[in-house]
Amino acid sequence: MGRVTTRAPVLKLGGADGGGGGVRTRDTLAAEEPLEIRVGDRQIAVTMRTPGEDFDLVAGYLVGEGVLRGPGQLARMRFCGDSACSGPVGLGTDASALHERVEAAHDTYNIVDVDLAPGVELPLWSLDRTTYTTSACGVCGKSSIEAVRANAHWSVATDPVHISPEVLYSLPSTLRAQQKLFAKTGGLHAAGLFSSSGGLLCIREDVGRHNAVDKVIGWALRADRLPLRGHLLAVSGRASFELVQKAAAAGIPVLAAVSAPSSLAVELAREAGMTLAGFVRGQSANVYTGAERIALTG
Amino acid sequence: MGRVTTRAPVLKLGGADGGGGGVRTRDTLAAEEPLEIRVGDRQIAVTMRTPGEDFDLVAGYLVGEGVLRGPGQLARMRFCGDSACSGPVGLGTDASALHERVEAAHDTYNIVDVDLAPGVELPLWSLDRTTYTTSACGVCGKSSIEAVRANAHWSVATDPVHISPEVLYSLPSTLRAQQKLFAKTGGLHAAGLFSSSGGLLCIREDVGRHNAVDKVIGWALRADRLPLRGHLLAVSGRASFELVQKAAAAGIPVLAAVSAPSSLAVELAREAGMTLAGFVRGQSANVYTGAERIALTG
Repeated sequence: MGRVTTRAPVLKLGGADGGGGGVRTRDTLAAEEPLEIRVGDRQIAVTMRTPGEDFDLVAGYLVGEGVLRGPGQLARMRFCGDSACSGPVGLGTDASALHERVEAAHDTYNIVDVDLAPGVELPLWSLDRTTYTTSACGVCGKSSIEAVRANAHWSVATDPVHISPEVLYSLPSTLRAQQKLFAKTGGLHAAGLFSSSGGLLCIREDVGRHNAVDKVIGWALRADRLPLRGHLLAVSGRASFELVQKAAAAGIPVLAAVSAPSSLAVELAREAGMTLAGFVRGQSANVYTGAERIALTG
Repeated sequence: MGRVTTRAPVLKLGGADGGGGGVRTRDTLAAEEPLEIRVGDRQIAVTMRTPGEDFDLVAGYLVGEGVLRGPGQLARMRFCGDSACSGPVGLGTDASALHERVEAAHDTYNIVDVDLAPGVELPLWSLDRTTYTTSACGVCGKSSIEAVRANAHWSVATDPVHISPEVLYSLPSTLRAQQKLFAKTGGLHAAGLFSSSGGLLCIREDVGRHNAVDKVIGWALRADRLPLRGHLLAVSGRASFELVQKAAAAGIPVLAAVSAPSSLAVELAREAGMTLAGFVRGQSANVYTGAERIALTG
């Protein structure tokens, strides 16, 4: 398994540690490595991610793409070697051969191959993404939103969950308190899945915020918790179209972001009937859509 | 041209504005729309971006991919209609036809088609990205770095530029002072190109940090300023592998980020001979690679 953090030399300038000449020390960095996702030996995506929880990442990615909605649809996942999927590398007796195998094993953990259960189909885009995209009615926010609707297995619009403002306000601080890697590196996004009363069920950190969300949703898929009715998803950064789309694909009715949402994130959340809150900081928040789920007291 | 910001209704909870029942008002959001990049009518990428400076975005993207290194290699760029590139939509006399044309024009501005100059080739990946990626020696940081080296037109390792710590410290505040859209929306990344004495040459904002960098580099390409020897690139967020790669492709010797770099960003910067600084905040900074370019006084 790849490392989640690495150490690197650093020259610290200024501040309490530095000064005019700087101080040479070492710093902990968030690891970033490419992960190739294959389905039945066919490459469908490469993402730059922080190693760890890779099966969750792959499963969550496939939920977001509309391929998976339950753990039974996933026959097998495994790490791959260069030329063929070969499973974990065994130990030999020859030292040089062992070294080569260890080197190969390192790369091995940057490719995951998925076997889908019989009858589970990849959508057309994965076979020819170019044709799929350009055959849509131009590329626009509207067609992006329609593509999400076409992929949707569940509706979040009818989810009756209500949450209090206090629960909403509590999500970022709960998330931050559990961000072990951020505390070390200052360089990771986090996503957390919460109950409607604010209890943290799963948190994942990654250099890519979409990966952190995929890891959380993949965890839920593999725990057979989809659709995530009555649940809340909190993210440490901004809310983009892509994050709303992933939440919708997992049936999550409430998305809370510490920073700003984009225009298309708000449009999609409105269209999907999702509650989208941004700038959730301290004792305040902006609710852009689905405000009827916030139990107001005033 | 698409809008750079949009307005949306919002319920503000808590804080100075809100209170128990919240306050209904309107908020300014950073616009996010897909942009399809075509070369010779062939789709090579779709990115979610903030509309505006789209030709710079496309040109910069193609610099980063190793396709372009001078403005003469770019024969033409134009916005496209749905089914064919048709240039700007003309005005008709029939009201309904006009409405349809205006609708089409809106989508039109989400597709840019590029004609390369004769003799300028697309790399293999754009013709069959899947084959290219899987024929590499597995997917690993090492092969990612080698792929960047294979694409490099210029070396930044030999760039003799020196900068003072004070110039380094000044970059984020200069950037922030010019971030007009961030001030309105709180939701945009920024990238700025600076002279070695800290003078701002170009700033671009976008919902995607890679897009902001592409827009800056595309501006420089179109102004025939590549390679950007002796220049500094500052980014408002974290430094990922991708951003270091884009800076290297444009010949930029110094990259300064307000937040943390990833492990692979540091590895690539070291390999390329680039100066990479992170956590550039107030009067302090961490210099991870290329510290010899910082003119220390202590």
